[in-house]
Amino acid sequence: MKAFDELWASILEVGRDRHTNGYRRFAWGDADLTLREWFSDSAARRGMDVEEDRNGNLWAWWLPPGYRGEPREAFVTGSHLDSVPDGGAFDGPLGVVSAFAAIDVVRERGIVPDRPIAVTAFSDEEGARFGVACIGSQLSTGALAPGRALSLRDHDGITLAEAMTRAGRDPVHLGADPALAARVGVFVELHVEQGRALDLIDAPVAVASSIWPHGRWEFLFTGEANHAGATRLVDRRDPMLSFASAVHLARAAALSHEAVATFGKVQVLPNGTNAIASEVRAWLDARAADEPTLTRLVAQIQAEAAARAHADRIDLTVTAESVAPIVEFPAEVRDRLLRSLAMLGEVPILPTAAGHDAGILSEKVPTAMLFVRNPTGVSHSPAEFAEPTDCHHGVRALAQVMTDWVTAPVTT
Amino acid sequence: MKAFDELWASILEVGRDRHTNGYRRFAWGDADLTLREWFSDSAARRGMDVEEDRNGNLWAWWLPPGYRGEPREAFVTGSHLDSVPDGGAFDGPLGVVSAFAAIDVVRERGIVPDRPIAVTAFSDEEGARFGVACIGSQLSTGALAPGRALSLRDHDGITLAEAMTRAGRDPVHLGADPALAARVGVFVELHVEQGRALDLIDAPVAVASSIWPHGRWEFLFTGEANHAGATRLVDRRDPMLSFASAVHLARAAALSHEAVATFGKVQVLPNGTNAIASEVRAWLDARAADEPTLTRLVAQIQAEAAARAHADRIDLTVTAESVAPIVEFPAEVRDRLLRSLAMLGEVPILPTAAGHDAGILSEKVPTAMLFVRNPTGVSHSPAEFAEPTDCHHGVRALAQVMTDWVTAPVTT
Repeated sequence: MKAFDELWASILEVGRDRHTNGYRRFAWGDADLTLREWFSDSAARRGMDVEEDRNGNLWAWWLPPGYRGEPREAFVTGSHLDSVPDGGAFDGPLGVVSAFAAIDVVRERGIVPDRPIAVTAFSDEEGARFGVACIGSQLSTGALAPGRALSLRDHDGITLAEAMTRAGRDPVHLGADPALAARVGVFVELHVEQGRALDLIDAPVAVASSIWPHGRWEFLFTGEANHAGATRLVDRRDPMLSFASAVHLARAAALSHEAVATFGKVQVLPNGTNAIASEVRAWLDARAADEPTLTRLVAQIQAEAAARAHADRIDLTVTAESVAPIVEFPAEVRDRLLRSLAMLGEVPILPTAAGHDAGILSEKVPTAMLFVRNPTGVSHSPAEFAEPTDCHHGVRALAQVMTDWVTAPVTT
Repeated sequence: MKAFDELWASILEVGRDRHTNGYRRFAWGDADLTLREWFSDSAARRGMDVEEDRNGNLWAWWLPPGYRGEPREAFVTGSHLDSVPDGGAFDGPLGVVSAFAAIDVVRERGIVPDRPIAVTAFSDEEGARFGVACIGSQLSTGALAPGRALSLRDHDGITLAEAMTRAGRDPVHLGADPALAARVGVFVELHVEQGRALDLIDAPVAVASSIWPHGRWEFLFTGEANHAGATRLVDRRDPMLSFASAVHLARAAALSHEAVATFGKVQVLPNGTNAIASEVRAWLDARAADEPTLTRLVAQIQAEAAARAHADRIDLTVTAESVAPIVEFPAEVRDRLLRSLAMLGEVPILPTAAGHDAGILSEKVPTAMLFVRNPTGVSHSPAEFAEPTDCHHGVRALAQVMTDWVTAPVTT
């Protein structure tokens, strides 16, 4: 599948760190801007007009012959181009590359669409830079207030407003997109699987059932900086001890709730070898199969961590940075995808514990997801991988769904 | 004491962070270069010639009238000007400011020295930038090989060689100073106390007995980056768990050995909220009253942490970055200081668990230390503090010691 392979190869080096081999594609940074240009080029080569909406999300349009006016009821497919720090090549870009490649497959089959088609790349899905995930899609649906978004700061203290301005964008237009619901007939996001379920059942592609409810909580442990040599143990107020307790408490609580809870990001002040920390700031990522379980899980971690911090004479404040409810993808859309894909063999239905723009958009428009097999299950890592044959299978599946959607009478 | 107060006020804003109020004076950075200029200015105002030696250590000379040739058997006093990240104002600069102020006191008394006097500021004592403490004094005594020093890297990957070159220095000359032993008759370092012993016994100044043996060990926990939502607990290799265990193991071991052990610096990769860490790098600072105890302490922490890491399927490598043996300051020098200070009232004798340039230099030359009361005991923190009256007392004590040393016949 030459189109896919060429598109894929053309971005492999963008934002890749030479030491870790991981990707550092952060919203509005150099790598992100390069990928935005790549998106526009890829669209232009296909005769598709590109639009960057008020929130920085990219749309490339293929309109039916003679189509007039604003696009409505479009078949929209895509994902995102940004990465976590030292992320893999697939999470995000696979969905965008596959979308363009699916367009090529549909055109090669001589199909002329009855309704608009768009390829999208949503802005800042991972939240790696400003600490909030799915900023582009959350702004468009109104889930994230523009005032809050603009004042988010990255690690260097740069606000989203400043970052967009530096990238030549005018952040004054940020906000809910009133045309979204009318414009999108369905949004189908293809994504590499972030787990090993497809490998275990030996299937290349799945359709999503739901996204687990999930969220991020900031745990700020505040003690007192002091000399690591000259301060007696009894005189210390060392927040590292309370943080270390929280790491284990979170793991134990996740185990007992059949959920997941992770401290993966930590910032220490002053972070000197011979100084007791004054402050440890750590972020808890927690997810569970349903919302009551997630609520109980986080409440338990918070209460147990607070008790330990209190015993250590450490102040603990916990702030919910984002909490996303469960997303149940609409059954009628999923069933329609399954019917489209029936000719490709049995297609399993899987939940996912990872958040996606499709989950955000599902509040406003019909959405669905396709997952492509990940043989190791590894994701958010340079080792993230999918076999080329499975990626090609994903493109064919997406082309099949696209074909059925844009050549059938409107039914939803 | 106008001279002290003016010198003190003139550097209060250099390298101070506006948010934390702490100091960020790192070797060869902007603040450090500003303080080096301040040192030269302060010397020039006193008619003292300034020399920056091959290792970047500063020397300001007051030679006896008619003195010829290289300075020999000098009374040398000073400390360092760099800080830990968000450190306090006193650790280091108090010794340099007090040295210049003591010169003024001695001169006001009309004393003409019989032997050379130098004020010094040793380079990069804290090791905040390149991870090794006392780089300047260790290079001069030959304790640190120049090849190793030049290849040390800071957080941004900049080597010491590059940092010195950027600061306009030629790092090619780094190495042991063959003139050191002949040049220095005694080195007396005045330092703010890093503990509350003087406060508890209500004394403004003490003389040091010894420096506890101490060291830094890098603990590198390596696991596997993965998606924090989609990866089952059982499939994880999360190094944060093993690190958290090590934090508690270190504290418990320190308690049982009547020692101190601290993890105060941590670097996490990729450090993303929704990514399980691939790597946690943490530094252990450990100190004990004697060397066998320190060895047993660190061996115990390492063995217990390795066992836990193994159980977590995490690789742990431990590297000793620096290990300093116990320093017993020579009794004859200490006794001479005590005799000089007898007129100032009872002067207690204290050990310290903090490392100092005086400890490094003691391998090659006679050394001693004076401590100035720290009413809270807090150090390596913006809250580090000493009362002005106690600082003035320290200057008078140093001037007394200086006077006795440079007007008495050579006896050591």
